[in-house]
Amino acid sequence: MAVDLPVAVDAMGGDNAPGEIVLGARMAADELGVRVVLVGLPEAIGDAGGLEILPASEVIGMEEDPAQGVRRKKDSSLVRAAEAVRDGRALAMVSAGNTGATMASALLRMGRLKGVVRPAIATPIPNIGSHPSLLLDAGANAECTAAMLVQFAQMGAAYSAARYGVSGASVALLSIGEEKSKGSPLVKEAHALLDDTPGIRFIGNVEGRDLLTGVADVVVTDGFTGNVALKTLEGALRFLMDQLVAAFGIDEDTAKAAEVMLPHLAPLVAEFDPENTGGAMLLGVDGVCVISHGSSSARAIVSAVRVAHDVAVAGLVEGLAASVATR
Amino acid sequence: MAVDLPVAVDAMGGDNAPGEIVLGARMAADELGVRVVLVGLPEAIGDAGGLEILPASEVIGMEEDPAQGVRRKKDSSLVRAAEAVRDGRALAMVSAGNTGATMASALLRMGRLKGVVRPAIATPIPNIGSHPSLLLDAGANAECTAAMLVQFAQMGAAYSAARYGVSGASVALLSIGEEKSKGSPLVKEAHALLDDTPGIRFIGNVEGRDLLTGVADVVVTDGFTGNVALKTLEGALRFLMDQLVAAFGIDEDTAKAAEVMLPHLAPLVAEFDPENTGGAMLLGVDGVCVISHGSSSARAIVSAVRVAHDVAVAGLVEGLAASVATR
Repeated sequence: MAVDLPVAVDAMGGDNAPGEIVLGARMAADELGVRVVLVGLPEAIGDAGGLEILPASEVIGMEEDPAQGVRRKKDSSLVRAAEAVRDGRALAMVSAGNTGATMASALLRMGRLKGVVRPAIATPIPNIGSHPSLLLDAGANAECTAAMLVQFAQMGAAYSAARYGVSGASVALLSIGEEKSKGSPLVKEAHALLDDTPGIRFIGNVEGRDLLTGVADVVVTDGFTGNVALKTLEGALRFLMDQLVAAFGIDEDTAKAAEVMLPHLAPLVAEFDPENTGGAMLLGVDGVCVISHGSSSARAIVSAVRVAHDVAVAGLVEGLAASVATR
Repeated sequence: MAVDLPVAVDAMGGDNAPGEIVLGARMAADELGVRVVLVGLPEAIGDAGGLEILPASEVIGMEEDPAQGVRRKKDSSLVRAAEAVRDGRALAMVSAGNTGATMASALLRMGRLKGVVRPAIATPIPNIGSHPSLLLDAGANAECTAAMLVQFAQMGAAYSAARYGVSGASVALLSIGEEKSKGSPLVKEAHALLDDTPGIRFIGNVEGRDLLTGVADVVVTDGFTGNVALKTLEGALRFLMDQLVAAFGIDEDTAKAAEVMLPHLAPLVAEFDPENTGGAMLLGVDGVCVISHGSSSARAIVSAVRVAHDVAVAGLVEGLAASVATR
């Protein structure tokens, strides 16, 4: 992998596209010193600030049917970005657009890694004072088999190595009790398989309340449960932050208390701000594909480009391929 | 249902049994003016403060196998409490003990309500400024069918009526997107069935991030997803509260800020304190059965007795029976 290849950024994807996306791409190139190529309609992109542009005449909308969009819009920014990675013209792709269409573009154009049954989305969960845990699948596969969960464990460990330098990542299974007799039939079967698969440092079941305690480097679950858990986490944190902000605004005394407290709370807020986490990663395709939040700002795009560049250079795809070949 | 019947409290169940449980039962009788009967070993109960005692010579431990425990320990406090409800000697039962054994005791001794496929656990989720939403199933059934989710909707609405006086409760289905095409096969089938079942005010799918927004009176899901979501919520709220408490303790200035803020934050903390919510309710058995948190204090038992008494008097069981008979 030539490390001086550019990161391909889908300029047309996301609620704030193309403005914030183009701005973020320019900031990323400036701040990180990495090459970035903007993919999209040149007239929509406007001033690229000297960045290369890979022209694409179509856009797959946020609400469009993913499979249909990719099949019909062969000259869309998403499809062209995935092709650039496939053809060795880009190091990685980043999109804040239609998540399903991003996955479909990556899967159909880059292809699956050999041996991977189904790609999965890995999402970082911050841990105070340590590297984040990775939760997967965060929503790519609403229905999973136990063998898929084993691959998620292998791929999650490879990603933890490439992204956070963790060697021999610990893996936990999300369930409704620590005992291996607890859970759905899928979880019980996966528990036994994870126990029996060499090369996986399986520490057993964890519960929803353990997700923020850094209990494991990797937490595996099916994409339905993973998505519900992540959005529940997001909703709960936002709820409490909103309540706190409201309480700080009650009167003059609370406003003064806010002045004292906010500098102490800022690092916590920053740690959980999706702008800083770099987005989710699609694991199991033959290339690096970062799925950013639909509401991504320029700052979120900078984080995403940084993560995309770093894991590509760290050999994520090679690590993933090796991880699933070990059985 | 004779409303002057006592609420049967399992004196032996819970991390703090019998001390806190007995104390809570006495407080409940004093504060609420309702009759309470303590079920358990008289010598362990000690000073019942004038409350009646229903003697039981055995205890099913917190970690014991539920089905086996109920089968073997016929003179256990849990089994005797359930029999008291069945035989019309108690209005309702309350236990902070082994959740599985509580469910098994209630199911095997009281029996299922006619037409109910499987009982479910309903847990209240607080809403600022309104009655709580009810999430079910919160963990009784790790595997569910779409028809079971429809019954959960009917039973949840009946419970919302008996407990919060809500008529025509709105019902949502927990999924990973609002569109009915999103989700697992179970969720898609349940969506169609909920849409087609008369008498259910179905408002569609909701996501994990909607759980704290009071989006529906009742949210239905399978017991695996429901348990993961609830524990994730619990973990996230505890995490942020712990962070906030730590930040308040940093120095003198933050301690002063805490003095200003805590009175404003106290109502929020109280609303989410499991001590005050009254515990979870087992719906679908032929009697009222409140499942309290294992860590219940005396205050939690007071809340549980209040809820048990109130919904029994409000005709919860009759409402549940009618709700599932409407198809």
